[in-house]
Amino acid sequence: MTTAPSSALFDRVALIGVGLIGSSLARAIRRHGLARTIAVADQGEGVAARALALGLCDEAGEDAVAAVRGADLVMLCTPVGAGEAIARAIGPALAPGAIVSDVGSVKARVIEMIAPHLPAGVHLVPGHPVAGTEKSGPESGFAELFEGRWCILTPLPTTDARAVDKVAELWRRVGMVIETMDPDTHDKVLAITSHLPHLIAYTIVGTAADLEDHLSQKVIAFSAGGFRDFTRIAGSDPVMWRDVFLNNREAVLEILQRFTEDLTALQRAIRWGEGDTLEALFTKTRAIRQAVIEAKQA
Amino acid sequence: MTTAPSSALFDRVALIGVGLIGSSLARAIRRHGLARTIAVADQGEGVAARALALGLCDEAGEDAVAAVRGADLVMLCTPVGAGEAIARAIGPALAPGAIVSDVGSVKARVIEMIAPHLPAGVHLVPGHPVAGTEKSGPESGFAELFEGRWCILTPLPTTDARAVDKVAELWRRVGMVIETMDPDTHDKVLAITSHLPHLIAYTIVGTAADLEDHLSQKVIAFSAGGFRDFTRIAGSDPVMWRDVFLNNREAVLEILQRFTEDLTALQRAIRWGEGDTLEALFTKTRAIRQAVIEAKQA
Repeated sequence: MTTAPSSALFDRVALIGVGLIGSSLARAIRRHGLARTIAVADQGEGVAARALALGLCDEAGEDAVAAVRGADLVMLCTPVGAGEAIARAIGPALAPGAIVSDVGSVKARVIEMIAPHLPAGVHLVPGHPVAGTEKSGPESGFAELFEGRWCILTPLPTTDARAVDKVAELWRRVGMVIETMDPDTHDKVLAITSHLPHLIAYTIVGTAADLEDHLSQKVIAFSAGGFRDFTRIAGSDPVMWRDVFLNNREAVLEILQRFTEDLTALQRAIRWGEGDTLEALFTKTRAIRQAVIEAKQA
Repeated sequence: MTTAPSSALFDRVALIGVGLIGSSLARAIRRHGLARTIAVADQGEGVAARALALGLCDEAGEDAVAAVRGADLVMLCTPVGAGEAIARAIGPALAPGAIVSDVGSVKARVIEMIAPHLPAGVHLVPGHPVAGTEKSGPESGFAELFEGRWCILTPLPTTDARAVDKVAELWRRVGMVIETMDPDTHDKVLAITSHLPHLIAYTIVGTAADLEDHLSQKVIAFSAGGFRDFTRIAGSDPVMWRDVFLNNREAVLEILQRFTEDLTALQRAIRWGEGDTLEALFTKTRAIRQAVIEAKQA
């Protein structure tokens, strides 16, 4: 890179949505001096005012169109289901040469929803910073969220390479490691590493909630040992996750089908007391854990 | 309590099995001066010698019978499936008035396996310190493992109350909070808080391992966001967990059935794009997370 570390990468960054990811990005952009101006739009009740009060941005309001005017980078940080309406609204107001990017956990559908509404000369660079916590809202963000984590970019073959480089550089400057893949591969990988685990965690915590009252109380009291991790995952933002499942339907349903088959086989092994089958699987998964530790993802 | 904090609760404690829990208990007993002598038996290759070398105990060998001679407390810290053979072997060697306890994650079956082999005058106090990590072996233990965690005791109606009190006091002295419940309730609660989460984690990591090679590699590389937690859980000891599922079969199969029904309903909601159903569940589970945090289990 020839850009000096301290120089602003962008003149005006518009963040549409200022929840955990948007507010973390605002903080990181501020800390690293990556934009001259940060404008925020969020339709959540009182959210824009809170973002201003937190010092996250220079301008904040409910109107995405106002935020994107004159922006050279527009970053969509809303639940993915909101993408189409926002793209339709802001399309006409986008400056020629502006970059539109996003942080959604689903890529193929998001591209389908956004791309048609962008005028010629505006560059779409779909992205996914793989980072987060189970918390929501502008107060929950922190500038260090992205450090050492992956950011996956899924540019189209036709996307301007300089626009992709600029978005990659933004994420690099806030601490991320960049990987590029096609949208379908991204959606399949995330279906298993993130979407299915969340679906399962939501399910099991829901199953526990529906137990007879005296058992349900005990489950909460003694929630150590596995369930606790699941409740943390199942405490994630409901609307964000609803949108993920609705918009990565095929990949989630496919991996869910495989998972269900595997679970049924295990259920059968338990019912028939097939200890060898259980032990063989549990030994195999231990090796995967080791691989994850070696990939420094643990 | 009238016992002075520094006085030994037991004269000779025999720990049968010195993995994560056994070795942590040995360390904690040492630190708090709760036994005059600690004898360890473990049939794992070289384990007894390592336990001695680690300074965990005064005596160590492969023979459980030698360890329990003269012991006033025998604590079974092996995978639960080993309980019956051990009880049969040590039964005749137990001193009159000795207490036999255990740390197993399953209680009803363990009582069935152990109780018949204990001579009259020996007190069985089944217990379960709800604490652990995914690590195994004598090197993985640490004295602080039990601090602030629950220990569930499931004494039989006929169990000598003084024996129960002594075991409770041991766990209290190493930092645990004691709860008493009947074995069946314990097994149902643990089936959902611990056994099902482990089963699911093992399954999903196994499903990932069976993916096409290029996807499987990416899943390991990008294992953030849910899957990482699952790989940690699925890195737990294979034999211990095999035994848990084989010996808590009914409770695990029952909760697994409920889970599968709930997962199928969710799968259907995803397939048919029923966003409201998804959001309603995800909102309900968030409240459970809040309850877990309030119960200080998070």
